[in-house]
Parts: sequence; C-alpha cells; structure tokens
Amino acid sequence: MTLALDSAAQDLLFREAHTANTFTDEPVSDEQLQAVYDLIKLAPTAFNQSPLRIVLVRSEEARERLLPLMAEGNRAKTASAPVVAILAADNEFHEELPALFPHFPQAKDVFFSERPVREQSATVNGALQAAYFILGIRAAGLAAGPMTGFDFAGVQKEFLDGDHTPLMIVNIGKPGPDAHHPRSPRLSFEQAVTTV
Amino acid sequence: MTLALDSAAQDLLFREAHTANTFTDEPVSDEQLQAVYDLIKLAPTAFNQSPLRIVLVRSEEARERLLPLMAEGNRAKTASAPVVAILAADNEFHEELPALFPHFPQAKDVFFSERPVREQSATVNGALQAAYFILGIRAAGLAAGPMTGFDFAGVQKEFLDGDHTPLMIVNIGKPGPDAHHPRSPRLSFEQAVTTV
Repeated sequence: MTLALDSAAQDLLFREAHTANTFTDEPVSDEQLQAVYDLIKLAPTAFNQSPLRIVLVRSEEARERLLPLMAEGNRAKTASAPVVAILAADNEFHEELPALFPHFPQAKDVFFSERPVREQSATVNGALQAAYFILGIRAAGLAAGPMTGFDFAGVQKEFLDGDHTPLMIVNIGKPGPDAHHPRSPRLSFEQAVTTV
Repeated sequence: MTLALDSAAQDLLFREAHTANTFTDEPVSDEQLQAVYDLIKLAPTAFNQSPLRIVLVRSEEARERLLPLMAEGNRAKTASAPVVAILAADNEFHEELPALFPHFPQAKDVFFSERPVREQSATVNGALQAAYFILGIRAAGLAAGPMTGFDFAGVQKEFLDGDHTPLMIVNIGKPGPDAHHPRSPRLSFEQAVTTV
C-alpha cells in the first residue's frame, strides 16, 4: 500500500467515479448537500479566503430559466439531473477576511485592496473549492457532471447576486443508463512531472 | 451515514488534515509521488485538458535557487520540507488535446485557438488539478503546505519550461512539531449556499 487512503475510498473518489451525462430520478436531499459542503469547506484556500458560492437549482421555475442558457449539448443532462449547482467565485471575498483569517485581519487591505488581484485570487481559489466540491459529491455516493458550456454572462445576470463570476455548472445525481463515456487517456507521470 | 465515504477517509482527507508549516526529515519517495499523481490524474478537467505541470524540487542545488524566490515568511518551511512541488498551468495544453480528447480532436482549434481563452482555461483547470493534488498528498498520509507567497515571475524564469504559469508551491512531508495553526472559521452552508 503506497497510499494511506483505503482502496474503496480511492475507487469511490477517483477510479470508479466518472463524469455523468444521464441521471436517475432518485432525489438528492438537502441533508446530503449540506454534508458535502460541511466536509469540503475544510480543505485549504489561500488566506482561508473561501470564495466559492453555490446556487442550487431545485425549483422547476429556476430550471426553466437555466436551460436556455446551457449550450445545446448540455440541455438534456441539465434537464434530467435531480439538482444542479451553479459554482461561482465571489470577487468581494475580502469583506469576509477579518472573520475568516482572524490572526491577520489586515490581509483584507494589505493584499486584496486591488480589484484585479482579488478577481484572479477568487478564480484560482474558487476553482480549488470547485474541485473539492466535485470530490465531495462523489464522497456522497453521487455522480457529478461539471460543465463549462453555458452562457456565462447570462448565468451571472439571471442567477448570481453581487459581484460573483461563474466557474462551472455541476449536474448532481445518481448516474442513469449509459451515464458516461469510456475514460479518455491521461498524461503519464513522465509527461506531467519533472524533477530537479 | 449521510456520506458514502468512510469516516477514516473523511478524516484523512479533510477533518484531521491541516496545512503543515513544519516537517520531519522522513523522506518522501518517488514511488509515493507517482502513486499520488496516478490517482489524481483521473479526476475531471474541461475537455480532459489536464493542464497541470509539476516540478518536484529535490536536489540541494535546485532548493538553493528556489529559497530566495520565496516570501521571507515561507523560506524556513520550504527549506525544511523533504520535497517541494511547483504547480504550474501549461498555457499550450491544447497541443495535447488530440491525444487527450480523441472523440473530438477538433476541440484544439474550435475552442482553444485564442491565447487569452487558453490562459483562462489553463488557470481554472490547473487549479482544479492543484486541489486534487493537495488531497492526493493527504491520501498518501502526507501533509501538504500550499503557498502563493513567492516571486511568480522569478519562479517561472528559473524553473518552468515553455509557456507555463505558476499556480502555487506545495511543501510536502510528514508534519513536524507544532506543524499547524488552529483551524480558522469557515463560512457556514447558509452563508455560502443559496437554493432557488
């Protein structure tokens, strides 16, 4: 055993998990999604800035507003997923830093007074948290279907409060029939990693 | 049990894991890091673009070049970690797409012919993979110490080949004495999540 993580957990999170394109109608509960969030919120971000904001699309009314904003190839998936999560980065995350980073509350002004710096940081750290979220959905025994094929400006206008930038939209549920493609090749260790 | 992931795995990856600031001198083997990579490479990126590139700093010569590029507050940590990983995003990832996304090899030209689009996509998807990597290090029973306090242009010039943008630098090893601060507060589910 080279890894400490047990192999059932490796399978659940990585080896047997796949991006799902179809879903059963088995519901996903608020309790499940809260357990996912309460686990993944613990994983690290820079300055504990925690910029990820999540909009859960549950009502038929909200889904009807979302579907026309999806790329055509994504509409059927998003129509069939029991719940759909819009993941966004809060570019005004620095307002929370005095509470989130209490041992250096000045970080808000020292590091994040400039908007382009904040936006870059929110994007990178929001993406870190999006990855934790995808693995958290898998940790709940559910399949995630992350997508970037949608009208970003339209989703921002229609669904996001304040100064939030969409990162991706994730379909969530139990995988249905023919839910995934065969896994595509990955870069080998030798291709992606060098040692100096 | 709301989550399918067993609680030992939840603890290892999230609850009992912390960003480490000190390290023992117990070595980290190439075999461990290859097992981490071979697990985390399976997690999803958009178009399977897999833009993460990793430079493992192992030699004394390379570490001596890295230390002056670290923010002063990060130097002692990076000096003491058994191995240090520079994580970067390959802005020319599209060259690999015909191999990585074989069922639509035209994606390279249809979606990624423009440099600013590629750079944004490499940053977001490289950050997703950086998050998978941090959890992968924890899956190996090791502690990760991710940092963004360093001279980005200097690290790019000194360590990265080609058109790669640094994302973060991660100290890796077994935690030493007083390795971590108490965990700072996180945003609650109600603060970060809304339902529509």
